[in-house]
Amino acid sequence: MLYEEKTMKTEKVYDGKILNLRIDTIELPDKKYSKREIVEHPGAVGIIAITSDNSLVLVKQYRKAVEDFLYEIPAGKLEVNEEPKETAIRELSEETGYNAEKLTYISEFYTSPGYCDEKIHLFLAQGLIKGDPYPDSGEFIETVEIPIDDLVKMLNRGEIVDSKTIIGIFIAKDLIKNS
Amino acid sequence: MLYEEKTMKTEKVYDGKILNLRIDTIELPDKKYSKREIVEHPGAVGIIAITSDNSLVLVKQYRKAVEDFLYEIPAGKLEVNEEPKETAIRELSEETGYNAEKLTYISEFYTSPGYCDEKIHLFLAQGLIKGDPYPDSGEFIETVEIPIDDLVKMLNRGEIVDSKTIIGIFIAKDLIKNS
Repeated sequence: MLYEEKTMKTEKVYDGKILNLRIDTIELPDKKYSKREIVEHPGAVGIIAITSDNSLVLVKQYRKAVEDFLYEIPAGKLEVNEEPKETAIRELSEETGYNAEKLTYISEFYTSPGYCDEKIHLFLAQGLIKGDPYPDSGEFIETVEIPIDDLVKMLNRGEIVDSKTIIGIFIAKDLIKNS
Repeated sequence: MLYEEKTMKTEKVYDGKILNLRIDTIELPDKKYSKREIVEHPGAVGIIAITSDNSLVLVKQYRKAVEDFLYEIPAGKLEVNEEPKETAIRELSEETGYNAEKLTYISEFYTSPGYCDEKIHLFLAQGLIKGDPYPDSGEFIETVEIPIDDLVKMLNRGEIVDSKTIIGIFIAKDLIKNS
């Protein structure tokens, strides 16, 4: 049976810089109460940036949460009053220095809908024009361009471990194959 | 420049049922300090369960965090001292009633490595044998079997919005095409 969980009480536990945490008390169909721990996130964009020779522009950076350096598609969180498309243009430029002649909305998805409301809006960037990156202070990142065929091999070897990037590679592979 | 962030201080903000929250103070290359908000999660499994007629077994359930009913591959978080493969066998059976004659490790990835350490271990389940589901108390879910071709259409229409499920559909599509 499908059932929409009604909020009986909500309690803010933490109000932070990039996320908040709240605990909702909800009512179940049998009238019992249960708790839901929910991370609030403003949402983000991810950019599948394809060069004219079918490489993907990725960034490599240290991720404290997982204590590792990861390859990821350029991405960043939505600022207040910012449309996802503006965020995509801004983040692509800041992180990689690239501007895109053509930016197309692809899809959107939740990273961890079991406990987090973060939605990622995916864009495809084509017609890339190189400029200089200007990352946020405190962001130390390296930009790389990797041919899609090599990326698929890296994915199969377990070297790409970020969910939005895996989705981006699958989409890019299909787009390039069908173009 | 790539740089590993050294922890100078760590502060536990919340210790919960399915997640914890901590704030790490880290040192940057310019010796300045910055904060990292980090959600701690025990990790989870996701199961790409393919039937003999090339359908995927999905579950539909309400997700309070995103206030919507989502289609997802069967999944669940790792219990203490549980190997991912055991979790996969348990969750597939609990959520869908299916047991798999063949369970194969596929890959692993992080859902949101920018602020969360959750790692999802993906398994492929084949040779499915139907039993009765016995979901956890408080879990109200519906099991559906959807042909992979229909799922790809649903994905293209934006009806599949969970990251692990999108990855699962891409993998299943490639596996079925190449089999």
